[in-house]
Amino acid sequence: MTYCVGLLLNAGMVLLSDTRTNGGLDNIATYRKMFTFVEPGERVVAIMTAGSLSVTQTTLARLREEIDAPEADGNSSIMQAPTMLKVSEIIGNTLAGVRKDIVSRMDAERISTSASMIVAGQRAGGEMRMFLIYPEGNFIEATEDTPFLQIGEHKYGKPILDRVVRSETSLEDAQKAVLLSMDSTLRSNLSVGMPLDLAVIRNNDCKISMQRRIEAGDTDFAEMSEAWSTALRDSFTQIQL
Amino acid sequence: MTYCVGLLLNAGMVLLSDTRTNGGLDNIATYRKMFTFVEPGERVVAIMTAGSLSVTQTTLARLREEIDAPEADGNSSIMQAPTMLKVSEIIGNTLAGVRKDIVSRMDAERISTSASMIVAGQRAGGEMRMFLIYPEGNFIEATEDTPFLQIGEHKYGKPILDRVVRSETSLEDAQKAVLLSMDSTLRSNLSVGMPLDLAVIRNNDCKISMQRRIEAGDTDFAEMSEAWSTALRDSFTQIQL
Repeated sequence: MTYCVGLLLNAGMVLLSDTRTNGGLDNIATYRKMFTFVEPGERVVAIMTAGSLSVTQTTLARLREEIDAPEADGNSSIMQAPTMLKVSEIIGNTLAGVRKDIVSRMDAERISTSASMIVAGQRAGGEMRMFLIYPEGNFIEATEDTPFLQIGEHKYGKPILDRVVRSETSLEDAQKAVLLSMDSTLRSNLSVGMPLDLAVIRNNDCKISMQRRIEAGDTDFAEMSEAWSTALRDSFTQIQL
Repeated sequence: MTYCVGLLLNAGMVLLSDTRTNGGLDNIATYRKMFTFVEPGERVVAIMTAGSLSVTQTTLARLREEIDAPEADGNSSIMQAPTMLKVSEIIGNTLAGVRKDIVSRMDAERISTSASMIVAGQRAGGEMRMFLIYPEGNFIEATEDTPFLQIGEHKYGKPILDRVVRSETSLEDAQKAVLLSMDSTLRSNLSVGMPLDLAVIRNNDCKISMQRRIEAGDTDFAEMSEAWSTALRDSFTQIQL
């Protein structure tokens, strides 16, 4: 499994993903699920992936091929597409294409080819936009009403986001919120695991403003997790039935 | 959907269920999902249900028929069975039998017959026991290591239980814990809804020690929910990244 979450806020975008993949319970490995594409000052695109690793890796590989050798009309490369909407369409079509190529073989073995992605980005002069791309290639967009998107094992970490995340939330609070959302997920689901990849894209930066890998032994994360546990237990003790 | 949760603690058992059922999104109704069977001082059995309403209602109807007209060996009635394990087997077999009777017709229409149950009870002289009965009729039991069982939409409300519920938890704190677990679920999933049914069975009481229906407008519940939201937001503000 996987847990990835992206927040689209007035001040910028905050992205967090875990890195655990598993084929069954005994074949566990660490794979990056956050991928960034940057032309500094001109364009930034971040992609987070969930689902079949072979599908998401092949999708990313095809996207990179098109970046390196784009078609003449510029409509095949996510680094040349004229809008973020078009970027999202390219990624959705590529994902659907990869699945179409292998789905008959996989279905015969009852192996899932399902995969989904969160795409976040901005072009110079454009707005920040964030999309959730479904396995079929269609997508939805984060809005002011729903300023966050999640893929993978999303339920354990949703209550904290529902309670604290608004469009006006600061980037500092937003990082805290996604890390606590991940912390709840890590505690409840073994198939989501450290290390974590955290990235912040400030509005109009058109680059990755901050990127950090949080390793299993990270003391800051452990302290925050512990402080949150303590605060929750204290709050629990104090409130009256 | 449904959310039901049961805690098996040293001091007793605490059960909470919602009452919302839905066929699709526009056919929503209120149905009790908690059923109690009591021979005061001799035996108490509580059943909570999730899944196909026709399956769970028919299962309960057959269990009641056997209580009213048990077979001579006493092994068909949950009010005569010699152990809670046997009670659980009767319920599991009845559930599996109901599903078997209708599954071919339902499968043809791609309608799910899935249903699960939590069974909690105690006989005079026996231990309190709590079981989760799967759709196939097999079951698992709550233990000291895992003192709670959930059915239905269980993920949103699990983090708070993971953090605060231990076998030593008091019945007062336990009621708070299940209500907050339900509160998180109600906020995140529309298909779980008020009113709620709450019951407490104290160890060796062999009766329902406390039972309460919490209606949509319940001020105590609303105040607790609001206090918890405030406490969470305050904690969130205070902890450092």
